[in-house]
Amino acid sequence: MAKAFLFINVESGSETEVLERLREVPEVKESYFVYGVYDIVAKVETDSMDRLKEVITSKVRKLDNVRSTLTTLVVEGK
Amino acid sequence: MAKAFLFINVESGSETEVLERLREVPEVKESYFVYGVYDIVAKVETDSMDRLKEVITSKVRKLDNVRSTLTTLVVEGK
Amino acid sequence: MAKAFLFINVESGSETEVLERLREVPEVKESYFVYGVYDIVAKVETDSMDRLKEVITSKVRKLDNVRSTLTTLVVEGK
Amino acid sequence: MAKAFLFINVESGSETEVLERLREVPEVKESYFVYGVYDIVAKVETDSMDRLKEVITSKVRKLDNVRSTLTTLVVEGK
Amino acid sequence: MAKAFLFINVESGSETEVLERLREVPEVKESYFVYGVYDIVAKVETDSMDRLKEVITSKVRKLDNVRSTLTTLVVEGK
Amino acid sequence: MAKAFLFINVESGSETEVLERLREVPEVKESYFVYGVYDIVAKVETDSMDRLKEVITSKVRKLDNVRSTLTTLVVEGK
Amino acid sequence: MAKAFLFINVESGSETEVLERLREVPEVKESYFVYGVYDIVAKVETDSMDRLKEVITSKVRKLDNVRSTLTTLVVEGK
Amino acid sequence: MAKAFLFINVESGSETEVLERLREVPEVKESYFVYGVYDIVAKVETDSMDRLKEVITSKVRKLDNVRSTLTTLVVEGK
Repeated sequence: MAKAFLFINVESGSETEVLERLREVPEVKESYFVYGVYDIVAKVETDSMDRLKEVITSKVRKLDNVRSTLTTLVVEGK
Repeated sequence: MAKAFLFINVESGSETEVLERLREVPEVKESYFVYGVYDIVAKVETDSMDRLKEVITSKVRKLDNVRSTLTTLVVEGK
Repeated sequence: MAKAFLFINVESGSETEVLERLREVPEVKESYFVYGVYDIVAKVETDSMDRLKEVITSKVRKLDNVRSTLTTLVVEGK
Repeated sequence: MAKAFLFINVESGSETEVLERLREVPEVKESYFVYGVYDIVAKVETDSMDRLKEVITSKVRKLDNVRSTLTTLVVEGK
Repeated sequence: MAKAFLFINVESGSETEVLERLREVPEVKESYFVYGVYDIVAKVETDSMDRLKEVITSKVRKLDNVRSTLTTLVVEGK
Repeated sequence: MAKAFLFINVESGSETEVLERLREVPEVKESYFVYGVYDIVAKVETDSMDRLKEVITSKVRKLDNVRSTLTTLVVEGK
Repeated sequence: MAKAFLFINVESGSETEVLERLREVPEVKESYFVYGVYDIVAKVETDSMDRLKEVITSKVRKLDNVRSTLTTLVVEGK
Repeated sequence: MAKAFLFINVESGSETEVLERLREVPEVKESYFVYGVYDIVAKVETDSMDRLKEVITSKVRKLDNVRSTLTTLVVEGK
């Protein structure tokens, strides 16, 4: 299993729309609009590292108005 | 009451225009053109956390030429 | 209710120990050792904004070997 | 007249103490404990650029537990 | 007199062109293409702080392909 | 001989395409899609510092969808 | 197999010593003293993700004079 | 010939002292106390890339109270 936090910056003004689309991705288990350096924090969980890559590159990073994503892989935790 | 500093980066060359529009937003109590990592520092004050969110997402982040905003919530201070 | 993500950097080599102590704090609902700019990601939930401040300043930031914390308040999300 | 924002990071756990000492400096007109990349935001106002430098180097940066300061000079604003 | 370093990022691929235009600005005393976080370092000298602001906002930041500028004011030095 | 690491950020969603083009540049000896602050890490080796500059400015930075490159020159190593 | 780049900052002045110790770690396949935001870039290769974590936390991060490490996991590349 | 800018952060409160010591290093041609992300900007010029490395590692980075240095190599400029 693979788990990662995605810290996402979006085009200014599009945060609600991006949040809605993220929530349609089944592997995105949680997603938050936050105050700070990033606009959105999302938690992604997949069966494997390969699938994690696929979700991030094909589903999240290709969403309209997503400017950049910082992927932080969970090494260990609960 | 909720108070926050917004550190704003704008499209290079548009800082005067963005500053003018920010000053038309009543909840933006102060706004400065600064030298440094950010282009503009703005102080926002609202009645509630919910209203703060609304002002930032609907009024500030949707302004033309605003590239990114970093919201720094005031926890305590004067 | 108030919810926040804490991105924590610790003295190099002390990550396991800090993680253990974080898990003794009841308001720290999740905590992860991660790869990236930060060493640890923790999710904190409290009854109020005032309590959130207390937990962060009195419990998390005062832990030995915690070098810096970046608090990212959740505005909205699930 | 010179005006600047100081974004201050302090030793983890010492934020209340640093805030108290900052408030004893007459040129520090406002000071806030904030959530985000920085721990404290302070607004400094002096009669001249020379005096600004003096206040920052001799009064703020020499305070115990101040780890780093980022000075952002106000170019224009209200 | 006012002196500042400008750390400039440009649209990828346009660094030679931006460098040439910067060198036509009389207040830009030195300009370098550098390896690192920034693409170009420029030293600007003017008669006054007001003039410095004018040069940065009207001449440098308005150049085509300049994405962002970080202005670092010289407090003291030789 | 000159050796450098390039930390590259690309338009969100174009990482596979940029990676393919990088691999057609003979001086790019290794290239990786990575998780973190940067999207791609590339190792570049050339005969001289002059040639390194040429490769970075004419070949890498001019690629479509490359948003920014951070060049980190190798001083010494194996 | 797991592969990662480590971007390491060390106590100013200790870079040669840290580099020597890193080279005694078998899983550190390459290590470089570089100019830029980081002081050292190291490439680590292990048999598994679990072993990667072990090498980073027990061998690299515990070295004297290592101040911080940024781990960038390789997703795909050659 | 090799030329580089060094962006230096020092222990808070020690900037005057570090500046004085930097000025005793013959290869440090200019040095400034600045406002911003860095505390000091220094321009270093040497006969060769090898000598540049020596000056940075043996003379600048080993100075007391220097916390970190970011070296930005000049590729081309005047």
